[in-house]
Amino acid sequence: MEESLGPIEMIMTTRAMRRFTDEPVAPELIRRCLAAAQQAPSGGNVQPQQYLVLTEPAPKEAIGNLYRRAFDRYEASLPERTFRNDDQRQSWERTSRASRHLADHLAEAPAIVLFLQPLIPWGGRDADGSLDIGRLDASVYPAVQNFCLAARSLGLGTALTTVIRVLGTEALEAVGVSPAEYEIAALVPVGWPTGHFGVAPRKPPEKATHWDRWGNRDVPGASGQ
Amino acid sequence: MEESLGPIEMIMTTRAMRRFTDEPVAPELIRRCLAAAQQAPSGGNVQPQQYLVLTEPAPKEAIGNLYRRAFDRYEASLPERTFRNDDQRQSWERTSRASRHLADHLAEAPAIVLFLQPLIPWGGRDADGSLDIGRLDASVYPAVQNFCLAARSLGLGTALTTVIRVLGTEALEAVGVSPAEYEIAALVPVGWPTGHFGVAPRKPPEKATHWDRWGNRDVPGASGQ
Repeated sequence: MEESLGPIEMIMTTRAMRRFTDEPVAPELIRRCLAAAQQAPSGGNVQPQQYLVLTEPAPKEAIGNLYRRAFDRYEASLPERTFRNDDQRQSWERTSRASRHLADHLAEAPAIVLFLQPLIPWGGRDADGSLDIGRLDASVYPAVQNFCLAARSLGLGTALTTVIRVLGTEALEAVGVSPAEYEIAALVPVGWPTGHFGVAPRKPPEKATHWDRWGNRDVPGASGQ
Repeated sequence: MEESLGPIEMIMTTRAMRRFTDEPVAPELIRRCLAAAQQAPSGGNVQPQQYLVLTEPAPKEAIGNLYRRAFDRYEASLPERTFRNDDQRQSWERTSRASRHLADHLAEAPAIVLFLQPLIPWGGRDADGSLDIGRLDASVYPAVQNFCLAARSLGLGTALTTVIRVLGTEALEAVGVSPAEYEIAALVPVGWPTGHFGVAPRKPPEKATHWDRWGNRDVPGASGQ
Protein backbone atom coordinates (compact mmCIF):
# COMPACT_ATOMS: atom_id res chain seq x y z
CA MET A 1 0.00 0.00 0.00
CA GLU A 2 1.39 3.37 -1.01
CA GLU A 3 -0.01 5.99 1.34
CA SER A 4 1.43 8.90 -0.61
CA LEU A 5 -0.05 7.93 -3.96
CA GLY A 6 -1.93 10.91 -5.41
CA PRO A 7 -5.36 10.25 -6.93
CA ILE A 8 -4.45 11.20 -10.49
CA GLU A 9 -1.14 9.35 -10.32
CA MET A 10 -3.14 6.36 -9.10
CA ILE A 11 -5.46 6.50 -12.12
CA MET A 12 -2.59 7.00 -14.56
CA THR A 13 -0.64 4.02 -13.21
CA THR A 14 -3.48 1.51 -13.04
CA ARG A 15 -2.80 -1.07 -15.73
CA ALA A 16 -3.81 -4.65 -16.43
CA MET A 17 -1.89 -7.14 -14.30
CA ARG A 18 -2.09 -10.72 -15.51
CA ARG A 19 0.60 -12.49 -13.44
CA PHE A 20 0.25 -12.87 -9.68
CA THR A 21 2.24 -14.27 -6.77
CA ASP A 22 0.89 -17.17 -4.72
CA GLU A 23 0.16 -14.90 -1.79
CA PRO A 24 -3.53 -14.97 -0.82
CA VAL A 25 -5.69 -11.84 -0.83
CA ALA A 26 -7.66 -11.17 2.35
CA PRO A 27 -11.42 -11.02 1.68
CA GLU A 28 -11.49 -7.73 3.59
CA LEU A 29 -9.38 -6.12 0.85
CA ILE A 30 -11.78 -7.39 -1.82
CA ARG A 31 -14.67 -5.97 0.20
CA ARG A 32 -12.99 -2.56 0.20
CA CYS A 33 -12.67 -2.72 -3.58
CA LEU A 34 -16.32 -3.75 -3.90
CA ALA A 35 -17.32 -0.81 -1.72
CA ALA A 36 -15.53 1.43 -4.23
CA ALA A 37 -17.29 -0.37 -7.10
CA GLN A 38 -20.63 0.22 -5.42
CA GLN A 39 -20.04 4.00 -5.39
CA ALA A 40 -19.93 4.13 -9.19
CA PRO A 41 -22.81 5.88 -10.92
CA SER A 42 -25.72 4.03 -12.50
CA GLY A 43 -28.73 5.10 -14.51
CA GLY A 44 -31.39 6.30 -12.06
CA ASN A 45 -28.98 5.12 -9.30
CA VAL A 46 -30.50 1.65 -9.59
CA GLN A 47 -27.14 -0.08 -8.94
CA PRO A 48 -28.03 -3.11 -11.06
CA GLN A 49 -24.82 -5.12 -10.79
CA GLN A 50 -24.11 -8.14 -8.62
CA TYR A 51 -20.66 -9.40 -7.60
CA LEU A 52 -19.67 -13.04 -7.40
CA VAL A 53 -16.24 -13.51 -5.80
CA LEU A 54 -14.51 -16.85 -6.29
CA THR A 55 -11.80 -17.80 -3.81
CA GLU A 56 -12.24 -21.57 -3.43
CA PRO A 57 -10.34 -23.94 -5.77
CA ALA A 58 -13.39 -25.74 -7.23
CA PRO A 59 -15.28 -22.74 -8.68
CA LYS A 60 -12.00 -21.08 -9.74
CA GLU A 61 -11.02 -24.22 -11.66
CA ALA A 62 -14.43 -24.54 -13.29
CA ILE A 63 -14.30 -20.94 -14.47
CA GLY A 64 -10.60 -21.22 -15.33
CA ASN A 65 -11.24 -24.14 -17.67
CA LEU A 66 -14.05 -22.29 -19.42
CA TYR A 67 -11.94 -19.14 -19.64
CA ARG A 68 -9.13 -21.02 -21.38
CA ARG A 69 -11.55 -22.43 -23.96
CA ALA A 70 -13.14 -19.00 -24.46
CA PHE A 71 -9.73 -17.41 -24.92
CA ASP A 72 -8.73 -20.05 -27.49
CA ARG A 73 -11.74 -19.14 -29.59
CA TYR A 74 -11.24 -15.41 -29.06
CA GLU A 75 -7.58 -15.53 -29.98
CA ALA A 76 -8.23 -17.60 -33.11
CA SER A 77 -10.83 -15.14 -34.35
CA LEU A 78 -8.75 -12.01 -33.83
CA PRO A 79 -6.36 -11.62 -36.74
CA GLU A 80 -8.83 -11.26 -39.55
CA ARG A 81 -11.58 -9.30 -37.88
CA THR A 82 -10.86 -7.10 -34.91
CA PHE A 83 -8.11 -4.70 -35.82
CA ARG A 84 -8.90 -1.53 -37.70
CA ASN A 85 -5.25 -0.72 -38.39
CA ASP A 86 -1.66 -1.79 -37.72
CA ASP A 87 -1.44 0.25 -34.50
CA GLN A 88 -4.30 -1.73 -33.01
CA ARG A 89 -2.75 -5.01 -34.11
CA GLN A 90 0.61 -4.08 -32.57
CA SER A 91 -1.07 -3.03 -29.32
CA TRP A 92 -2.67 -6.44 -29.10
CA GLU A 93 0.56 -8.28 -29.85
CA ARG A 94 2.36 -6.49 -27.03
CA THR A 95 -0.05 -7.93 -24.47
CA SER A 96 -0.87 -11.25 -26.10
CA ARG A 97 1.75 -13.25 -24.18
CA ALA A 98 0.49 -11.98 -20.83
CA SER A 99 -3.11 -12.59 -21.91
CA ARG A 100 -2.25 -16.16 -22.87
CA HIS A 101 -0.55 -16.64 -19.50
CA LEU A 102 -3.70 -15.46 -17.74
CA ALA A 103 -5.84 -17.79 -19.84
CA ASP A 104 -3.64 -20.75 -18.91
CA HIS A 105 -3.41 -19.86 -15.20
CA LEU A 106 -6.64 -18.06 -14.29
CA ALA A 107 -7.63 -20.63 -11.64
CA GLU A 108 -4.37 -19.87 -9.80
CA ALA A 109 -5.32 -16.23 -9.24
CA PRO A 110 -6.07 -15.71 -5.53
CA ALA A 111 -9.54 -14.42 -6.41
CA ILE A 112 -11.74 -14.02 -9.46
CA VAL A 113 -14.58 -11.50 -9.42
CA LEU A 114 -17.51 -11.86 -11.82
CA PHE A 115 -19.46 -8.65 -12.44
CA LEU A 116 -23.01 -9.66 -13.29
CA GLN A 117 -25.47 -7.51 -15.19
CA PRO A 118 -29.20 -8.27 -15.11
CA LEU A 119 -30.88 -9.02 -18.40
CA ILE A 120 -33.73 -6.62 -19.15
CA PRO A 121 -36.85 -8.59 -20.10
CA TRP A 122 -38.27 -5.68 -22.06
CA GLY A 123 -35.00 -5.12 -23.92
CA GLY A 124 -34.32 -1.66 -22.55
CA ARG A 125 -36.75 0.00 -24.93
CA ASP A 126 -39.96 1.86 -24.33
CA ALA A 127 -43.47 0.82 -25.37
CA ASP A 128 -43.09 1.72 -29.05
CA GLY A 129 -39.64 0.14 -29.18
CA SER A 130 -37.78 3.27 -30.22
CA LEU A 131 -36.42 4.56 -26.92
CA ASP A 132 -33.17 3.02 -25.71
CA ILE A 133 -33.18 3.59 -21.97
CA GLY A 134 -31.63 0.32 -20.96
CA ARG A 135 -27.93 1.04 -21.33
CA LEU A 136 -26.96 -1.06 -18.32
CA ASP A 137 -23.39 -1.36 -19.61
CA ALA A 138 -23.01 2.29 -18.65
CA SER A 139 -24.00 1.34 -15.11
CA VAL A 140 -21.78 -1.72 -14.71
CA TYR A 141 -18.42 -0.93 -16.32
CA PRO A 142 -17.80 2.22 -14.23
CA ALA A 143 -18.16 -0.05 -11.19
CA VAL A 144 -15.64 -2.49 -12.66
CA GLN A 145 -13.20 0.36 -13.23
CA ASN A 146 -13.70 1.67 -9.68
CA PHE A 147 -12.93 -1.84 -8.43
CA CYS A 148 -9.69 -2.04 -10.42
CA LEU A 149 -8.59 1.43 -9.32
CA ALA A 150 -9.29 0.74 -5.64
CA ALA A 151 -7.36 -2.53 -5.95
CA ARG A 152 -4.40 -0.68 -7.45
CA SER A 153 -4.54 1.77 -4.53
CA LEU A 154 -4.09 -1.23 -2.22
CA GLY A 155 -1.26 -2.62 -4.36
CA LEU A 156 -3.46 -5.36 -5.84
CA GLY A 157 -3.32 -6.25 -9.52
CA THR A 158 -6.40 -6.77 -11.69
CA ALA A 159 -7.34 -7.07 -15.35
CA LEU A 160 -10.71 -6.21 -16.86
CA THR A 161 -11.59 -9.06 -19.21
CA THR A 162 -14.75 -9.93 -21.15
CA VAL A 163 -13.56 -13.04 -22.99
CA ILE A 164 -15.55 -15.40 -20.73
CA ARG A 165 -18.69 -14.02 -22.44
CA VAL A 166 -17.87 -16.35 -25.35
CA LEU A 167 -18.93 -19.20 -23.03
CA GLY A 168 -21.06 -17.03 -20.76
CA THR A 169 -23.98 -19.43 -20.35
CA GLU A 170 -21.76 -22.33 -19.31
CA ALA A 171 -19.82 -20.07 -16.93
CA LEU A 172 -22.97 -18.80 -15.22
CA GLU A 173 -24.32 -22.32 -14.82
CA ALA A 174 -20.99 -23.45 -13.32
CA VAL A 175 -21.42 -21.02 -10.42
CA GLY A 176 -25.17 -21.35 -9.94
CA VAL A 177 -26.37 -18.17 -11.68
CA SER A 178 -29.36 -18.30 -14.01
CA PRO A 179 -28.40 -17.27 -17.57
CA ALA A 180 -32.02 -16.18 -17.98
CA GLU A 181 -31.51 -13.48 -15.34
CA TYR A 182 -27.90 -12.32 -15.63
CA GLU A 183 -25.05 -12.02 -18.06
CA ILE A 184 -21.37 -11.68 -17.23
CA ALA A 185 -20.26 -8.12 -17.93
CA ALA A 186 -16.66 -8.66 -16.85
CA LEU A 187 -14.34 -11.15 -15.21
CA VAL A 188 -11.57 -9.64 -13.08
CA PRO A 189 -8.75 -11.72 -11.55
CA VAL A 190 -7.25 -10.26 -8.38
CA GLY A 191 -3.85 -10.88 -6.85
CA TRP A 192 -0.53 -9.43 -5.77
CA PRO A 193 1.19 -8.64 -9.05
CA THR A 194 4.62 -9.90 -10.02
CA GLY A 195 5.15 -6.80 -12.16
CA HIS A 196 5.14 -3.12 -11.37
CA PHE A 197 2.44 -0.51 -11.74
CA GLY A 198 3.16 2.16 -14.29
CA VAL A 199 1.73 4.19 -17.14
CA ALA A 200 0.58 1.70 -19.77
CA PRO A 201 1.25 2.43 -23.45
CA ARG A 202 -1.56 4.44 -25.00
CA LYS A 203 -1.83 6.77 -27.95
CA PRO A 204 -1.74 10.45 -26.93
CA PRO A 205 -5.25 11.63 -25.91
CA GLU A 206 -4.85 14.56 -28.33
CA LYS A 207 -5.14 12.06 -31.20
CA ALA A 208 -8.65 11.15 -30.02
CA THR A 209 -9.82 14.62 -28.97
CA HIS A 210 -11.91 17.06 -31.00
CA TRP A 211 -12.89 20.53 -29.82
CA ASP A 212 -16.38 21.93 -30.54
CA ARG A 213 -16.72 20.15 -33.87
CA TRP A 214 -15.56 16.86 -35.30
CA GLY A 215 -12.02 17.03 -36.65
CA ASN A 216 -11.07 20.32 -34.98
CA ARG A 217 -7.81 19.83 -33.04
CA ASP A 218 -7.37 23.46 -31.96
CA VAL A 219 -7.62 23.75 -28.19
CA PRO A 220 -9.82 26.77 -27.31
CA GLY A 221 -7.81 29.80 -26.27
CA ALA A 222 -4.48 28.04 -26.84
CA SER A 223 -3.17 30.82 -29.09
CA GLY A 224 -5.31 33.77 -28.00
CA GLN A 225 -5.05 33.83 -24.19
CA MET B 1 -7.80 21.01 -5.68
CA GLU B 2 -7.29 18.90 -2.59
CA GLU B 3 -3.68 17.78 -2.55
CA SER B 4 -4.15 15.49 0.43
CA LEU B 5 -7.05 13.52 -1.00
CA GLY B 6 -6.27 9.80 -0.78
CA PRO B 7 -7.02 7.64 -3.83
CA ILE B 8 -9.71 5.49 -2.23
CA GLU B 9 -11.32 8.49 -0.53
CA MET B 10 -11.34 10.14 -3.96
CA ILE B 11 -13.18 7.19 -5.53
CA MET B 12 -15.65 6.96 -2.66
CA THR B 13 -16.53 10.67 -2.82
CA THR B 14 -16.96 10.97 -6.58
CA ARG B 15 -20.63 11.54 -7.19
CA ALA B 16 -22.78 13.01 -9.94
CA MET B 17 -22.75 16.82 -9.94
CA ARG B 18 -25.50 18.42 -11.99
CA ARG B 19 -25.35 22.10 -10.93
CA PHE B 20 -22.34 24.26 -11.77
CA THR B 21 -21.13 27.78 -11.14
CA ASP B 22 -20.56 30.17 -14.06
CA GLU B 23 -16.79 29.94 -13.67
CA PRO B 24 -15.13 28.65 -16.85
CA VAL B 25 -13.02 25.49 -16.89
CA ALA B 26 -9.57 25.81 -18.44
CA PRO B 27 -9.12 23.44 -21.41
CA GLU B 28 -5.86 22.29 -19.82
CA LEU B 29 -7.84 20.76 -16.93
CA ILE B 30 -10.07 18.93 -19.38
CA ARG B 31 -7.00 17.65 -21.18
CA ARG B 32 -5.69 16.22 -17.89
CA CYS B 33 -8.97 14.41 -17.38
CA LEU B 34 -8.86 13.08 -20.93
CA ALA B 35 -5.32 11.82 -20.33
CA ALA B 36 -6.72 9.86 -17.37
CA ALA B 37 -9.56 8.57 -19.58
CA GLN B 38 -7.05 7.43 -22.17
CA GLN B 39 -5.26 5.22 -19.60
CA ALA B 40 -8.38 3.11 -19.08
CA PRO B 41 -8.20 -0.47 -20.33
CA SER B 42 -9.72 -1.57 -23.63
CA GLY B 43 -10.08 -4.93 -25.33
CA GLY B 44 -6.81 -5.69 -27.10
CA ASN B 45 -5.71 -2.19 -26.01
CA VAL B 46 -7.33 -0.81 -29.17
CA GLN B 47 -8.51 2.40 -27.39
CA PRO B 48 -11.56 2.77 -29.63
CA GLN B 49 -13.14 5.88 -28.11
CA GLN B 50 -13.04 9.44 -29.40
CA TYR B 51 -13.69 12.57 -27.34
CA LEU B 52 -15.60 15.60 -28.55
CA VAL B 53 -15.37 18.52 -26.12
CA LEU B 54 -17.89 21.33 -26.48
CA THR B 55 -17.00 24.70 -25.00
CA GLU B 56 -18.48 27.19 -27.49
CA PRO B 57 -22.07 28.41 -27.01
CA ALA B 58 -23.42 27.25 -30.39
CA PRO B 59 -22.64 23.52 -30.16
CA LYS B 60 -23.48 23.49 -26.45
CA GLU B 61 -26.90 24.98 -27.19
CA ALA B 62 -27.58 22.58 -30.05
CA ILE B 63 -26.76 19.60 -27.84
CA GLY B 64 -28.52 21.18 -24.86
CA ASN B 65 -31.78 21.49 -26.79
CA LEU B 66 -31.61 17.88 -27.93
CA TYR B 67 -30.72 16.74 -24.44
CA ARG B 68 -33.80 18.42 -22.99
CA ARG B 69 -36.04 16.72 -25.55
CA ALA B 70 -34.33 13.38 -24.92
CA PHE B 71 -34.75 13.78 -21.17
CA ASP B 72 -38.45 14.60 -21.57
CA ARG B 73 -38.99 11.32 -23.36
CA TYR B 74 -36.79 9.40 -20.95
CA GLU B 75 -38.53 10.81 -17.89
CA ALA B 76 -41.99 10.11 -19.31
CA SER B 77 -41.11 6.49 -19.99
CA LEU B 78 -39.63 5.76 -16.58
CA PRO B 79 -42.48 5.07 -14.15
CA GLU B 80 -44.00 2.07 -15.79
CA ARG B 81 -40.93 0.34 -17.11
CA THR B 82 -37.56 0.88 -15.51
CA PHE B 83 -37.78 0.17 -11.83
CA ARG B 84 -37.57 -3.36 -10.55
CA ASN B 85 -38.64 -2.45 -7.02
CA ASP B 86 -39.51 0.44 -4.68
CA ASP B 87 -35.88 0.97 -3.64
CA GLN B 88 -34.93 1.67 -7.25
CA ARG B 89 -37.87 4.03 -7.67
CA GLN B 90 -36.95 5.96 -4.52
CA SER B 91 -33.31 6.20 -5.62
CA TRP B 92 -34.46 7.78 -8.85
CA GLU B 93 -36.78 10.23 -7.13
CA ARG B 94 -33.98 11.50 -4.92
CA THR B 95 -32.00 12.62 -7.95
CA SER B 96 -34.82 13.50 -10.31
CA ARG B 97 -34.89 17.22 -9.44
CA ALA B 98 -31.18 17.60 -10.06
CA SER B 99 -31.48 15.59 -13.27
CA ARG B 100 -34.30 17.86 -14.45
CA HIS B 101 -32.17 20.90 -13.63
CA LEU B 102 -29.34 19.51 -15.74
CA ALA B 103 -31.74 18.81 -18.61
CA ASP B 104 -32.98 22.40 -18.51
CA HIS B 105 -29.51 23.98 -18.17
CA LEU B 106 -27.06 21.67 -19.92
CA ALA B 107 -25.91 24.34 -22.39
CA GLU B 108 -24.82 26.51 -19.45
CA ALA B 109 -22.28 23.93 -18.27
CA PRO B 110 -18.77 25.25 -18.95
CA ALA B 111 -17.99 22.16 -21.01
CA ILE B 112 -19.77 19.09 -22.35
CA VAL B 113 -17.77 16.02 -23.31
CA LEU B 114 -19.21 13.45 -25.71
CA PHE B 115 -17.62 9.99 -25.48
CA LEU B 116 -17.94 8.41 -28.91
CA GLN B 117 -17.82 4.69 -29.57
CA PRO B 118 -17.21 3.35 -33.09
CA LEU B 119 -19.89 1.18 -34.60
CA ILE B 120 -18.58 -2.25 -35.57
CA PRO B 121 -19.58 -3.04 -39.15
CA TRP B 122 -19.36 -6.77 -38.55
CA GLY B 123 -21.43 -6.54 -35.36
CA GLY B 124 -18.71 -7.72 -33.00
CA ARG B 125 -19.23 -11.35 -33.90
CA ASP B 126 -16.99 -13.87 -35.58
CA ALA B 127 -17.47 -15.52 -38.96
CA ASP B 128 -20.15 -17.98 -37.86
CA GLY B 129 -21.95 -15.28 -35.86
CA SER B 130 -21.72 -16.99 -32.51
CA LEU B 131 -18.69 -15.33 -30.92
CA ASP B 132 -19.29 -12.00 -29.20
CA ILE B 133 -15.90 -10.31 -29.21
CA GLY B 134 -17.08 -6.79 -29.81
CA ARG B 135 -17.97 -5.60 -26.32
CA LEU B 136 -16.78 -2.05 -26.94
CA ASP B 137 -18.89 -0.77 -24.04
CA ALA B 138 -16.36 -2.49 -21.79
CA SER B 139 -13.67 -0.39 -23.45
CA VAL B 140 -15.41 2.99 -23.35
CA TYR B 141 -17.19 3.26 -19.98
CA PRO B 142 -14.04 2.64 -17.93
CA ALA B 143 -12.57 5.65 -19.75
CA VAL B 144 -15.63 7.72 -18.89
CA GLN B 145 -15.28 6.76 -15.24
CA ASN B 146 -11.56 7.60 -15.24
CA PHE B 147 -12.47 11.00 -16.67
CA CYS B 148 -15.03 11.66 -13.94
CA LEU B 149 -12.64 10.53 -11.19
CA ALA B 150 -9.78 12.67 -12.48
CA ALA B 151 -12.16 15.63 -12.66
CA ARG B 152 -13.20 15.08 -9.05
CA SER B 153 -9.51 15.00 -8.07
CA LEU B 154 -9.24 18.48 -9.57
CA GLY B 155 -12.42 19.65 -7.81
CA LEU B 156 -14.47 19.53 -11.01
CA GLY B 157 -17.99 18.16 -11.06
CA THR B 158 -19.28 15.74 -13.70
CA ALA B 159 -22.22 13.45 -14.32
CA LEU B 160 -22.20 10.34 -16.49
CA THR B 161 -25.37 10.49 -18.60
CA THR B 162 -26.62 8.39 -21.51
CA VAL B 163 -30.00 10.04 -22.08
CA ILE B 164 -28.83 11.83 -25.24
CA ARG B 165 -28.78 8.40 -26.92
CA VAL B 166 -32.56 8.74 -27.28
CA LEU B 167 -31.81 11.37 -29.92
CA GLY B 168 -28.33 10.13 -30.71
CA THR B 169 -28.48 10.46 -34.48
CA GLU B 170 -29.62 14.08 -34.35
CA ALA B 171 -27.00 14.88 -31.71
CA LEU B 172 -24.18 13.39 -33.76
CA GLU B 173 -25.28 15.27 -36.86
CA ALA B 174 -25.43 18.53 -34.87
CA VAL B 175 -21.69 18.31 -34.14
CA GLY B 176 -20.53 16.89 -37.46
CA VAL B 177 -20.09 13.23 -36.54
CA SER B 178 -21.32 10.51 -38.88
CA PRO B 179 -23.98 8.34 -37.19
CA ALA B 180 -22.88 5.59 -39.56
CA GLU B 181 -19.47 5.52 -37.88
CA TYR B 182 -20.03 6.39 -34.23
CA GLU B 183 -22.58 6.28 -31.47
CA ILE B 184 -22.62 8.38 -28.31
CA ALA B 185 -21.68 6.19 -25.36
CA ALA B 186 -21.96 8.97 -22.78
CA LEU B 187 -22.43 12.70 -22.37
CA VAL B 188 -20.59 14.28 -19.45
CA PRO B 189 -21.08 17.92 -18.40
CA VAL B 190 -18.08 19.47 -16.64
CA GLY B 191 -17.99 22.46 -14.30
CA TRP B 192 -17.17 23.75 -10.86
CA PRO B 193 -19.92 22.27 -8.69
CA THR B 194 -22.20 24.31 -6.47
CA GLY B 195 -22.54 21.33 -4.12
CA HIS B 196 -20.02 19.32 -2.15
CA PHE B 197 -18.37 16.03 -2.91
CA GLY B 198 -19.30 13.21 -0.60
CA VAL B 199 -20.28 9.57 -0.40
CA ALA B 200 -23.43 9.18 -2.50
CA PRO B 201 -26.27 6.99 -1.20
CA ARG B 202 -25.84 3.38 -2.29
CA LYS B 203 -27.04 0.08 -0.94
CA PRO B 204 -24.36 -1.74 1.07
CA PRO B 205 -22.06 -3.73 -1.26
CA GLU B 206 -22.67 -6.81 0.91
CA LYS B 207 -26.22 -6.90 -0.47
CA ALA B 208 -24.85 -7.41 -3.97
CA THR B 209 -21.93 -9.71 -3.11
CA HIS B 210 -21.87 -13.50 -3.31
CA TRP B 211 -18.89 -15.65 -2.30
CA ASP B 212 -17.92 -18.74 -4.34
CA ARG B 213 -21.49 -19.56 -5.32
CA TRP B 214 -24.63 -17.60 -6.04
CA GLY B 215 -26.53 -16.65 -2.90
CA ASN B 216 -23.73 -17.45 -0.44
CA ARG B 217 -23.18 -14.40 1.81
CA ASP B 218 -20.57 -15.98 4.09
CA VAL B 219 -17.24 -14.21 3.70
CA PRO B 220 -14.44 -16.84 3.47
CA GLY B 221 -12.57 -17.25 6.75
CA ALA B 222 -14.75 -14.72 8.57
CA SER B 223 -15.56 -17.13 11.39
CA GLY B 224 -12.62 -19.53 11.18
CA GLN B 225 -9.54 -17.30 11.10
